[in-house]
Amino acid sequence: MTVDAAEPRRVAVLGAGSWGTTFAKILADGGSRVALWARRPELAREITQSHRNSDYLPGINLPLGLASSSRLPEVLEGAQQVYLSVPSQSLRENLRIVRELIPDGAPVVSLMKGVEKGTGDRMSEVIAQELGVGPERIAVVSGPNLALEIAKEQPTAAVVSSASLDTASAVARVASNPYFRSFVNTDVIGTEFGGVLKNLIAVAIGIVDGVGYGENTKASIITRGLVEMTDFAVAFGARPETLAGLAGLGDLIATCESSLSRNNTAGRLLGQGYAYQEVIAQMNQTAEGLSSVAPVLELAASVGVEMPIVSQVAEVLAGTLEPRDIAPHLTTDTDVPQGE
Amino acid sequence: MTVDAAEPRRVAVLGAGSWGTTFAKILADGGSRVALWARRPELAREITQSHRNSDYLPGINLPLGLASSSRLPEVLEGAQQVYLSVPSQSLRENLRIVRELIPDGAPVVSLMKGVEKGTGDRMSEVIAQELGVGPERIAVVSGPNLALEIAKEQPTAAVVSSASLDTASAVARVASNPYFRSFVNTDVIGTEFGGVLKNLIAVAIGIVDGVGYGENTKASIITRGLVEMTDFAVAFGARPETLAGLAGLGDLIATCESSLSRNNTAGRLLGQGYAYQEVIAQMNQTAEGLSSVAPVLELAASVGVEMPIVSQVAEVLAGTLEPRDIAPHLTTDTDVPQGE
Repeated sequence: MTVDAAEPRRVAVLGAGSWGTTFAKILADGGSRVALWARRPELAREITQSHRNSDYLPGINLPLGLASSSRLPEVLEGAQQVYLSVPSQSLRENLRIVRELIPDGAPVVSLMKGVEKGTGDRMSEVIAQELGVGPERIAVVSGPNLALEIAKEQPTAAVVSSASLDTASAVARVASNPYFRSFVNTDVIGTEFGGVLKNLIAVAIGIVDGVGYGENTKASIITRGLVEMTDFAVAFGARPETLAGLAGLGDLIATCESSLSRNNTAGRLLGQGYAYQEVIAQMNQTAEGLSSVAPVLELAASVGVEMPIVSQVAEVLAGTLEPRDIAPHLTTDTDVPQGE
Repeated sequence: MTVDAAEPRRVAVLGAGSWGTTFAKILADGGSRVALWARRPELAREITQSHRNSDYLPGINLPLGLASSSRLPEVLEGAQQVYLSVPSQSLRENLRIVRELIPDGAPVVSLMKGVEKGTGDRMSEVIAQELGVGPERIAVVSGPNLALEIAKEQPTAAVVSSASLDTASAVARVASNPYFRSFVNTDVIGTEFGGVLKNLIAVAIGIVDGVGYGENTKASIITRGLVEMTDFAVAFGARPETLAGLAGLGDLIATCESSLSRNNTAGRLLGQGYAYQEVIAQMNQTAEGLSSVAPVLELAASVGVEMPIVSQVAEVLAGTLEPRDIAPHLTTDTDVPQGE
């Protein structure tokens, strides 16, 4: 890889869904030349020729500095940073395909929020295992980042996390532009778990929404949900401040308040009385929150952390708890119920 | 005051606005006989005879155990607990009127969220000064408590705080029913400041709403707003856990997400480009958040606490900052901007 100082920086984004395409736009609007990998050649053609991704980002004009291809070698050649936005359950197989194509030394950045089923591994762990690179070359991006709002260039803040502050800073510099500001930290565990766990609380919010409860109940669930997210993440080595920040509370609030979120929608259907299998059947896309419930509760049990809200979601999914009983009679750590 | 064990408990609520009337209903639905003071005799008559408060709680049926009067001695006679829900700026003068009427030993409970202009005193401080009672007889109630939702009997949690855990527990037992659960703590300062400060952040949320920004921006402001609320309250002796709980974060989220909130509405008008004086003129009722900006910033300065969001709200009010520049390029404690 040779870098000509007069040439703009080249970066690659793998995955042309709504978030991958939005992030490619963020990077292009920050001055980089971006190659975006789309699995389907017709989507790659639409993005490159029409500067549109009408399936995932209808109405959004993509910048001129963004080109797409379905050919991985073309996308990855000369990339100085590589961003990954593929479905979390397919990350491992995708990495096996691209392993030899990633330029030496290029930071690898996860834009994904999930844990791998079966292993319970976080995305950065899957990257480390499959690429055989050290933590100093891996970064993750999280925060209150609803894709469509960012695609519309609404001002947004995000967090870039890496075990190496230099890597986080290098990524944050590239992933910044007038409407998107990246902050950095070194707590990869907290940053990643925040993005995973908020989906579970969003399902709970969807459920009470479906039942017909209002803002009081939802605010109580978000408040208590943050506590169990924090307890969980800290048990695995995260810093509590990370969960209180943009990648924890910030992402949690944005996700819970977005009626477009798939987790929210899935929860709402459950709250309206549909059974788990009916909800799965009604939704075309996976709701990450639903599939994370079981692995997260297993991980929680393995470290002795109680997650009352997530457990109640699991009971609703199993059909053993009525949605209208899910809240808000939650105990709190700091407030003692009635002092009795 | 004599108490017959066969008689239901008698409690008094002063102030028949939406929150006072809702709280009277909470107490009556918990089994107490409730006397509600309304300033206007015609409102008292409507409540007692029609079991309605059509101005403040349209469509809500009030329980049979709730009677209203405009005569203070009648309302306060034999009351075993006294709840106050008058406008915060009129609390002191109201207390001077009722001082001699409050039964000996009855706990006095503030349902109000505000600080007194001029003195900067919290409501519990005004109560202590004007009634000359010790902190063990004073309690405050706070939490994610939008009145209309509770009046519709949606499940809700609240916090009762008193320097005396016994008093907090006694109040919480009375202020509990199947749809309303009260938790207790002893951090009166944190509980009260949470209720005051969230109004200021709600104004900021209203402003960005008026500008047209979405959930990413709002989530960032709530996240960072909680940090400055906590910094402020802790500087005055509050416990950080209180601000992370229902009386802090919970109340903040409920208020920010309620489009009915006056603070939100005021902010939205500012965000749409109306000047401060025009907003005041357009709104019939006071938005507590607007009048708290100056006193809170003075208190913050007196203890050296920075409140960037509240300061930006003040600049918008003064006309020296464009609403669209209010966010979200906020620095964070835990996340370092770009590491540069």
